[in-house]
Amino acid sequence: MTDRIPVAQLRRFITTCLEKLGLPPQDAATVGHLMAEAEAQGSDGHGVIRLIPYSKRIRAGGMNLTPNIKVVKEKAAMALLDGDNGMGHLVMQRAAQIAIEKARNCGVAWVGARLSNHAGPASLYARMALEHDMIGMYYAVGNANHLPPWGGLDMLLSTNPIAVAVPAGEEPPVVLDMATTVAAYGKVKAKAQRGEQMPVGWMIDRKGEPLTDPKRSEEGFLMPIGGYKGYGLAMVVGLLAGTLNGAAMGSETIDFNKDIVSVTNTGQAICVIDPDAFGEVAEFKARVDKLIRELRASERMPGVDRIWMPGEQSHAKRLANERDGIALPDALLANLHTFADDLGVPRLSTQSSRA
Amino acid sequence: MTDRIPVAQLRRFITTCLEKLGLPPQDAATVGHLMAEAEAQGSDGHGVIRLIPYSKRIRAGGMNLTPNIKVVKEKAAMALLDGDNGMGHLVMQRAAQIAIEKARNCGVAWVGARLSNHAGPASLYARMALEHDMIGMYYAVGNANHLPPWGGLDMLLSTNPIAVAVPAGEEPPVVLDMATTVAAYGKVKAKAQRGEQMPVGWMIDRKGEPLTDPKRSEEGFLMPIGGYKGYGLAMVVGLLAGTLNGAAMGSETIDFNKDIVSVTNTGQAICVIDPDAFGEVAEFKARVDKLIRELRASERMPGVDRIWMPGEQSHAKRLANERDGIALPDALLANLHTFADDLGVPRLSTQSSRA
Repeated sequence: MTDRIPVAQLRRFITTCLEKLGLPPQDAATVGHLMAEAEAQGSDGHGVIRLIPYSKRIRAGGMNLTPNIKVVKEKAAMALLDGDNGMGHLVMQRAAQIAIEKARNCGVAWVGARLSNHAGPASLYARMALEHDMIGMYYAVGNANHLPPWGGLDMLLSTNPIAVAVPAGEEPPVVLDMATTVAAYGKVKAKAQRGEQMPVGWMIDRKGEPLTDPKRSEEGFLMPIGGYKGYGLAMVVGLLAGTLNGAAMGSETIDFNKDIVSVTNTGQAICVIDPDAFGEVAEFKARVDKLIRELRASERMPGVDRIWMPGEQSHAKRLANERDGIALPDALLANLHTFADDLGVPRLSTQSSRA
Repeated sequence: MTDRIPVAQLRRFITTCLEKLGLPPQDAATVGHLMAEAEAQGSDGHGVIRLIPYSKRIRAGGMNLTPNIKVVKEKAAMALLDGDNGMGHLVMQRAAQIAIEKARNCGVAWVGARLSNHAGPASLYARMALEHDMIGMYYAVGNANHLPPWGGLDMLLSTNPIAVAVPAGEEPPVVLDMATTVAAYGKVKAKAQRGEQMPVGWMIDRKGEPLTDPKRSEEGFLMPIGGYKGYGLAMVVGLLAGTLNGAAMGSETIDFNKDIVSVTNTGQAICVIDPDAFGEVAEFKARVDKLIRELRASERMPGVDRIWMPGEQSHAKRLANERDGIALPDALLANLHTFADDLGVPRLSTQSSRA
């Protein structure tokens, strides 16, 4: 992991691969931008690691390369999108744009989607509100069930993530992006890819024993945060992002790792609030700054160097990666080289870290 | 705890006490209804146990008995209420009514409040959407800080609860009501009142050691769910319910147990979604039923008798308490008798459990 790839090069590489796979150039560029952005902010479970799985689904005919993404239901402050089985990034970027426009008029807006697909990290879409000085919230049904109901053994729920992005003034925005499980399944896969063990508490096996080998993840399930609370959160997020939209939920969820052909009917939702409707935006952002600063200035527990805000480490990673380039794990880079050769596109060329 | 009090009697008792304390009859009836409802659904930390603390604040001039609760900002799908330091129940019932009306027109609505006060359990207000076949979500800034930022020692955050209520068809509605801490502080107080110990994991002291004696709760702080995730959730809920509305957050939060005079400037928010905007309501509710039933039918871990949905146990308690009356702890009942005598209103009269 010593060589670094400029973000712009990674973006072009992903875009070129997706074009080669058959996406229209504009759509390939949109997805390439968002996947590189995910990688740049450190969402390594949702970044370029997904390119090869996406390509398998595309080649198997499991995703629509030229979807007719359309609004099927609409009111002043809401819309329901039919994603026509297109890439989730395209569906949810559109959803965010509509929600931002409607929030500007109505103060708040909610846009749901069905027949979407995996769209990368939740925070990508919540963050789209920030450049409009708005608050973004994102909810999604995960694309594989790894969580049983509390007390149960049948994996009927996914990690159903939540993201909330709140603009600040001089401080970085507050961006919470969390699975409703202790760890996201993407993090389990990243551990497996790196040959690392998982901490106790991420997963248990069917007998309730800790499971720490990510290569054995099929034998167990993820643990919800706060026990029954996380189970409840995963369920209501799924009701909001899936069931409400007529998207898959519970046993309807397609495990996109095992089944690369069936339509996933992925459900997602975005809610945008315009703080301008509530008062002076500058005053709101100043209040956010004040809160951040007083939390950061708290007396610390022994051994704690710094108190971080939600999203602050991702923000720092994004700045560093945009400056220095992105370091990809060797195994992933090797896979991407093979993939590029196979597709007939130029390999990613790494550069030495800044001297 | 052998004698039971009919819910209607408890409601009348609370209403009479509040009238005697100076609330207009209609407002006293509204709060009495909601407080008895909280007790009936088993939210014992937020029910009639709060009557005496509320009365202390009222007598000290810390709450406005005749507030002019008004909309100070409004757009098609949002409103910001100024609660004029009235009882939180009055402010948030109004907020829920406005949100329901706006959601009917716009598909979704968000109503925030500032200058409100403690309003009881979060689910009370999220549930108000249910009788309109709508989805309700509620966010609040708690009325005392018991949670430091992750890695910190200064208690700058509260338990900031979330509630989500989703209507079902033949099944009870799904109602999640959770503090973003492992335990709500109201539960700590209920343990203290009952002379019980807390489980390990609810609180730690300033050295990070488990704190299990609820009478020593002042010496420690609550633990967030999922570690840094719960800290992040508490913060963003506070940003949405407090900071956005110009209500207290962080160090501005008044500890309403210690300070019964200062205006708390409590912030809360409610979001209502109308499923009718997304498609046929009957179909949506049937899909919710289907999900509930398949989660409930999951194979269970050894020793687990039943898989519960969020809110299902509260629903069962509500039905049982409406039928059999509410059993109050002896110590609480004794306090309420003294309180009634002092106020010059008839005591609660208990009846034997149904023969």
